[in-house]
Amino acid sequence: MAGLSSKDISGSRIFVTYRIAGGEKDALASARDICFEQTVEFPDKLIPSDFIRNNVVGKIEQFTPDNAGGFKAIISYAQETAAKELTQLLNLVFGNISIKAGIRVCDIVFPKAFLSGFKGPRFGRKGLRELLSVSGRPLLCAALKPMGLSSCELAELAYECALGGIDIIKDDHGLTNQCFASFQERVKLCAEAVMTANRKTNQKCIYAANVTAPFDEIYKRVEFAKQCGAGAVMIAPGITGFDTMRAIAGDDSIGLPIFSHPAFLGTYLINPDAGISHYVLLGLLNRLAGADAVIYPNYGGRFPFTRRDCEEIIAGTSVDMEHIPLIFPVPGGGISLDKLPELIKFYGQEVIFLIGGGLFTRGDDFIENCRYFRELVVSR
Amino acid sequence: MAGLSSKDISGSRIFVTYRIAGGEKDALASARDICFEQTVEFPDKLIPSDFIRNNVVGKIEQFTPDNAGGFKAIISYAQETAAKELTQLLNLVFGNISIKAGIRVCDIVFPKAFLSGFKGPRFGRKGLRELLSVSGRPLLCAALKPMGLSSCELAELAYECALGGIDIIKDDHGLTNQCFASFQERVKLCAEAVMTANRKTNQKCIYAANVTAPFDEIYKRVEFAKQCGAGAVMIAPGITGFDTMRAIAGDDSIGLPIFSHPAFLGTYLINPDAGISHYVLLGLLNRLAGADAVIYPNYGGRFPFTRRDCEEIIAGTSVDMEHIPLIFPVPGGGISLDKLPELIKFYGQEVIFLIGGGLFTRGDDFIENCRYFRELVVSR
Repeated sequence: MAGLSSKDISGSRIFVTYRIAGGEKDALASARDICFEQTVEFPDKLIPSDFIRNNVVGKIEQFTPDNAGGFKAIISYAQETAAKELTQLLNLVFGNISIKAGIRVCDIVFPKAFLSGFKGPRFGRKGLRELLSVSGRPLLCAALKPMGLSSCELAELAYECALGGIDIIKDDHGLTNQCFASFQERVKLCAEAVMTANRKTNQKCIYAANVTAPFDEIYKRVEFAKQCGAGAVMIAPGITGFDTMRAIAGDDSIGLPIFSHPAFLGTYLINPDAGISHYVLLGLLNRLAGADAVIYPNYGGRFPFTRRDCEEIIAGTSVDMEHIPLIFPVPGGGISLDKLPELIKFYGQEVIFLIGGGLFTRGDDFIENCRYFRELVVSR
Repeated sequence: MAGLSSKDISGSRIFVTYRIAGGEKDALASARDICFEQTVEFPDKLIPSDFIRNNVVGKIEQFTPDNAGGFKAIISYAQETAAKELTQLLNLVFGNISIKAGIRVCDIVFPKAFLSGFKGPRFGRKGLRELLSVSGRPLLCAALKPMGLSSCELAELAYECALGGIDIIKDDHGLTNQCFASFQERVKLCAEAVMTANRKTNQKCIYAANVTAPFDEIYKRVEFAKQCGAGAVMIAPGITGFDTMRAIAGDDSIGLPIFSHPAFLGTYLINPDAGISHYVLLGLLNRLAGADAVIYPNYGGRFPFTRRDCEEIIAGTSVDMEHIPLIFPVPGGGISLDKLPELIKFYGQEVIFLIGGGLFTRGDDFIENCRYFRELVVSR
């Protein structure tokens, strides 16, 4: 019952880089404010002991002008303040100051002592390739859509995708449990359709069921998907909470790859003076939360992500994080087949290309369109 | 297994008002885009049936210039597309388009058919007043802080707050399960301290334990808090996901009031050209997710909320939502005692005033400071 003492503080610290808008004086004041707001949430003069002041309050480790304007502050926190919880980490890094203007989380460097509390992705790039028995080329992903089709119609599409040589067939993320294609009916039929096609093709295509769902439903859906033979699941952590994904990823009784979808997270990303960088939110945090692959809108599609944003995501999926594996970037969001040669140059092989509507536009023979998509990627 | 047909579509629709930045032509194109992006995620020309086009794709119901610049589009969605799920509602309203610039969710009007699937807050304003046996004045809330104190020290503070006549004593939201004040130790001691004080004062002060926690921990913490005699819990839905709060609020075996904390949600709020309005995010969605009271930073404190933002939140806590009760606004975030007379004029009686650090600054006698806070409010 003793309070904070030296035995509680390992010296391991979490380093967070914030970009702060404004002139030097204001930005420095803001950096100092972050140190208190994110920890003791108390004015300096009221802090009841030097030990708390020196060990709980964040520390400015570096404060330098940023090339993009404003300043960069590296602030470190005792890793014990994050309590080994992903939920408290989010709060520590950006909880209250998400409500203040002009602050963006650009980078986090985790100490080994913190990362050791996280399993991370179960498969990652290597494990997913082994599962699919695919090496030496990018992976191919297609989406079942549009909402409004029956479960049978969606399963027929899944079947055709699998026959056409797609590696991963995912639900559109808006397909949850609508009355016109209920979760159980859809997932059962789609998983069966893909397994049937696999028996014909001798491939190992997997169906990723969207399990983004209410708190008291999500586990049931994951378990049902697994029972049906779905080879993966998709979760939108911006909707369920990142930690929900972590719990499912870490559960040995499940053991399915997880695709992370960015729905509802865009607001954090698209204003460069606020929120959280693509690198941290889509890269680091998805890895910490156990995603094996992160879906996002590619540059030049119908969303405003830039090449630079995509480079940041790639970096976030592949930067060293101790035992946490590298994961796949999954660019989508309006990729058309004619862009593929350029995208293969940009991404190289360690990527999953997700084509949704673009697969439907080439011609009426959907299986042929899938084969053409595959040919474009395999022939490179 | 039939696809979408007229029997699946009740005609009940969810009306979402979006503010869209830009000139008329671009804003109208954006409104049209929202209708597709949020539902079928498919180009119009590829939609396989008129029935899907007419019943699944969103509809622009109104498109008018907005006083604040840009345009307001009211777009309606068939309530069946939200699948009676809070998670899918968030996705339907703002999932993909959170990634597009210049779109803000300003209002949602829910049909009775959708609301009937939600219990909403268990207590609301009326129930919380009954629980506390307080009528005819604003309620008083204090926060246990700073992080770094021992569980004993925090419990001592809780005891003094309760003796001083505070109605609700909440954990600081950064207190989760740190090694220097573990959840179980802290909650047990703080709940006991408040109950002990209540026996002295004959009041019904409640302790609100912060249960913002990992997915596989949060229920255990809620149950432990209840066992210990905590009278309420606090959750940050931006960290756990809104639906986690809804599940806990709706669970009859728990039955505790819920305080919602805005940590990590600020990015949605603070850019008026993006995200989600204070009215919707802090008001309507908290109510739908079962919060009995919503904590937020008051205007004029250390956060950038304006009077207008606070008025929006008040409106969101009290607008008619069928059977969903009115909930309390809980302004905090740097309220000082000397501001109270003004704030009582602004908020009236249907409010919970949350004072954190401000309670420590008046003098060394903390109990006396709490009594002074109460006196200021009761004497009006």
